[in-house]
Amino acid sequence: MLVNLLGNLSERISTKSPSFLLVIGTTDVSLIPGVTIAGATPELTMVTPAADAEYLITGTCKTIKGVPVTPDGIPTPAVLTRASLSFLRVDKLIVNAGARVKPLISFVDLHGEPGRDIRKGGVRKEVGERIIQNAILLAESLSSHDLLMIGESIPAGTTTAAAVLTGLGFDGVQIVSSASPNNPKDLKRTIVNEALARAPSDVRERIFWLSDPVLLAVAGLAIGFKGQVVLAGGTQMTAVAAIIRELAPERLRDVGIMTTRWIVKDSSANILKVSKELDINLSYSDIDLGRSKYNGLRVYERGIVKEGVGAGGALGLAMNSGIGEDQLLQKIERFYSYLINS
Amino acid sequence: MLVNLLGNLSERISTKSPSFLLVIGTTDVSLIPGVTIAGATPELTMVTPAADAEYLITGTCKTIKGVPVTPDGIPTPAVLTRASLSFLRVDKLIVNAGARVKPLISFVDLHGEPGRDIRKGGVRKEVGERIIQNAILLAESLSSHDLLMIGESIPAGTTTAAAVLTGLGFDGVQIVSSASPNNPKDLKRTIVNEALARAPSDVRERIFWLSDPVLLAVAGLAIGFKGQVVLAGGTQMTAVAAIIRELAPERLRDVGIMTTRWIVKDSSANILKVSKELDINLSYSDIDLGRSKYNGLRVYERGIVKEGVGAGGALGLAMNSGIGEDQLLQKIERFYSYLINS
Repeated sequence: MLVNLLGNLSERISTKSPSFLLVIGTTDVSLIPGVTIAGATPELTMVTPAADAEYLITGTCKTIKGVPVTPDGIPTPAVLTRASLSFLRVDKLIVNAGARVKPLISFVDLHGEPGRDIRKGGVRKEVGERIIQNAILLAESLSSHDLLMIGESIPAGTTTAAAVLTGLGFDGVQIVSSASPNNPKDLKRTIVNEALARAPSDVRERIFWLSDPVLLAVAGLAIGFKGQVVLAGGTQMTAVAAIIRELAPERLRDVGIMTTRWIVKDSSANILKVSKELDINLSYSDIDLGRSKYNGLRVYERGIVKEGVGAGGALGLAMNSGIGEDQLLQKIERFYSYLINS
Repeated sequence: MLVNLLGNLSERISTKSPSFLLVIGTTDVSLIPGVTIAGATPELTMVTPAADAEYLITGTCKTIKGVPVTPDGIPTPAVLTRASLSFLRVDKLIVNAGARVKPLISFVDLHGEPGRDIRKGGVRKEVGERIIQNAILLAESLSSHDLLMIGESIPAGTTTAAAVLTGLGFDGVQIVSSASPNNPKDLKRTIVNEALARAPSDVRERIFWLSDPVLLAVAGLAIGFKGQVVLAGGTQMTAVAAIIRELAPERLRDVGIMTTRWIVKDSSANILKVSKELDINLSYSDIDLGRSKYNGLRVYERGIVKEGVGAGGALGLAMNSGIGEDQLLQKIERFYSYLINS
């Protein structure tokens, strides 16, 4: 079931023909030990976005054997996304905002570059402007669709999101979630404070300094698209919405966030409060993976992984198209079993 | 008016939701003096595809001042394409099959490389396989649309097309047209014969040897797409169809060529005969640019430029959607006048 928390996103998108973009990138923040579990090691977080992209499009990864996993071996949420989209007739495109490792399949390049450690400035101004400009043009060119769903893959993305939110006046570290059940909030706060201490005062330059390439690209895509936009992701997407509010506030009317129940229920974060403040639609897809025969899926109910690669949005899109929870669970398990046996 | 010469392409596409891809690339064949007029000088032919892409998406070029022109200053047919598509709600994407100069806007990269002089082998086997594989995957991912229109920009593309056609048993040099009113057939025949003399006997390898990256990419896209495909181009597209017949003959059923009247009427070429032999749909868009107030457009009626950047297909798509010839001519003239005055 797709549940509306704020607004009526499920009704607004029910008759529309969607296109799904996965925006990938990296930030050197993910190399800081302890900040993210979106990769088996800090170094491997640099590969996760490329591998997620390859898995989403082809069903297997090319840059690594297997798929991206947490240090405990829990696989990427791309499994949920791919399973959900397999029921639908949806265009899928990979958009590279700036990833250290590039996918070995076709992707649209925004001519960005990998994000740097935000304590020394995340995205250079010139690069940030180019990412946004190219994203706007790209989304304009895809506006024959009346619905654009945008997912993301960028390890440590909640930390840069916390920094951007804080820089724009929100209580960033209180808002953002984590792929880990133990949200490393003290570490995030230290990084965010250090980044903020050196951030420029000009709002646009401050956003670039605190941001990663993916946040900028998703914001640009949402601004350029002529139609309804669904930001398919967790608390990171509230940072995107906050950027949009600075750059093109009139576009927020057509922007909603669609995430998972695991993000909404995360007591270490608060997506509802900030979404209310931003006055945007918020929905979540409600599926119970506790019923799964696989431990790697049951752990979602304990708050591991939670979201990513547009999983919540893809699930919601499938549910909104009449695909039942049992059908979805079966397909997710089939894809999961194929993974662990190959 | 969109005229069906073979089959009923206009009826088959009339209810469908289209996506438009412009596939760009270069071949070093265009550096051979006299072979092409798709650029003011042989060196500038390397810039033409990137500049065409930029113009199509943004309305201005970034890699050069102005737009690509012939040595006589006649501008790119991208003006016709952009004017036609401006009436329609169509997704537009640039696909780079292998261009020496890359556009300064976003594009999908097939991870190919620029084509070499076909006398020494046009596309390396490994690169050709990668282009085709990535193109198939990309088109599969775009199959929420039920119509894919594919245009091309590659100077000297008719020469490589003649080589591929000849290598696959057709009378290639007799078939292909030219952007010039004086089709340099003797030069083309010399190049084709020299390329053929050294071409491998294995069919797949022979195709790569004689080809340019664009022909392979367009063939791969047509093979991978799940729906009706319109090859928007001139005689080059018959070489694409011939490649599809070798690699995935069952796909030819859903493939048609849509071109301009100037290609169909070209007495130095023969698109009708080869299309009959390939048993594919063939249509052309009939617009009279002789009525234009601009000489740079009237010259189309004297067989200069003729086709390119999907002009014939884009015109046909607009005509098929009820846009009248007067409306189209006005828009083309407006875009043209903006160009020559800026």
